Amino acid sequence: MNGRSFKMLMDTLRRARRIDGMMPQLPPDLTNGRTRVLDTLYELGGYAKEDASRRRAVRVSDIADDMGATRPGVTRMVCDLERDGYLHKSASPTDGREVLVELTEHGLATHRVWYEEVYEYTALLLGEAGVTEHDIEVTVRTVKRLLEVVGEADLTRWQNERLGRKAAACGSAEE
Amino acid sequence: MNGRSFKMLMDTLRRARRIDGMMPQLPPDLTNGRTRVLDTLYELGGYAKEDASRRRAVRVSDIADDMGATRPGVTRMVCDLERDGYLHKSASPTDGREVLVELTEHGLATHRVWYEEVYEYTALLLGEAGVTEHDIEVTVRTVKRLLEVVGEADLTRWQNERLGRKAAACGSAEE
Repeated sequence: MNGRSFKMLMDTLRRARRIDGMMPQLPPDLTNGRTRVLDTLYELGGYAKEDASRRRAVRVSDIADDMGATRPGVTRMVCDLERDGYLHKSASPTDGREVLVELTEHGLATHRVWYEEVYEYTALLLGEAGVTEHDIEVTVRTVKRLLEVVGEADLTRWQNERLGRKAAACGSAEE
Repeated sequence: MNGRSFKMLMDTLRRARRIDGMMPQLPPDLTNGRTRVLDTLYELGGYAKEDASRRRAVRVSDIADDMGATRPGVTRMVCDLERDGYLHKSASPTDGREVLVELTEHGLATHRVWYEEVYEYTALLLGEAGVTEHDIEVTVRTVKRLLEVVGEADLTRWQNERLGRKAAACGSAEE
């Protein structure tokens, strides 16, 4: 593994940012950001009546944390999504200051069309293009490791220390 | 390959968007966007004196196309980068209306520190975490295939046709 390979990986991941824009258009009241809020809420278990065993209370802050987004941004999208009938908010029964969020039937149905039907079809096309389950597993594992490694490494500190040493080396050379 | 695997891949790629924000801080006059312009220019061969055989004329539109960004946005960043000494612009010798772009020595040196030193170090850490060259190859190939497949599939049309058929099915049920 060398810097060149790593760069190829980084460039590929940057290119991959286009992918959401290439997927089918959403209903006009759903931006990519709002769709991600819906999906994060679904993944965290905040859906209305489907499979009560997996359902759990989801707070706005849970969604923001999972998305790696700011709380005010997510709060705004949650309000818009409530107005358009995709989810509803309620006060927590245990703590009145806490707001819980849940998908409505409409939100759940939209999620189903978007993520199940379109994704199943795309998965089929990918399989036909020769991409295997194993390829996906390797890709997901590699990107996760990358995020873990970079998250733990504190590269900014490493760079500053390097720059510090460089400056020190220049200083001593002048003496 | 099923929709669930595909979704895992998409979620992973969305998470990977954080990666640039986790890399070391750039010099204060380099945003992530400007760094990408510098790197795209480098990759397209627009560097000043290094390896003349790989060097070639690069236009602003080449950079924008390669980045998948808008031309006005890239033009603005190119002007900022010229002002800060990272690149310089010149009129094309063959077509005076065309503007060619080239890295300065300062731009090339900055690129070297950023992409070579930091990337080599990160690649080392990734290797220590068990990520192999093969993992990177699979990841890069998988994401490229994904972008190709989705780019060619016209999923929006597929979805509209599906919605059309659904609407037609509802219509006939009402008769």
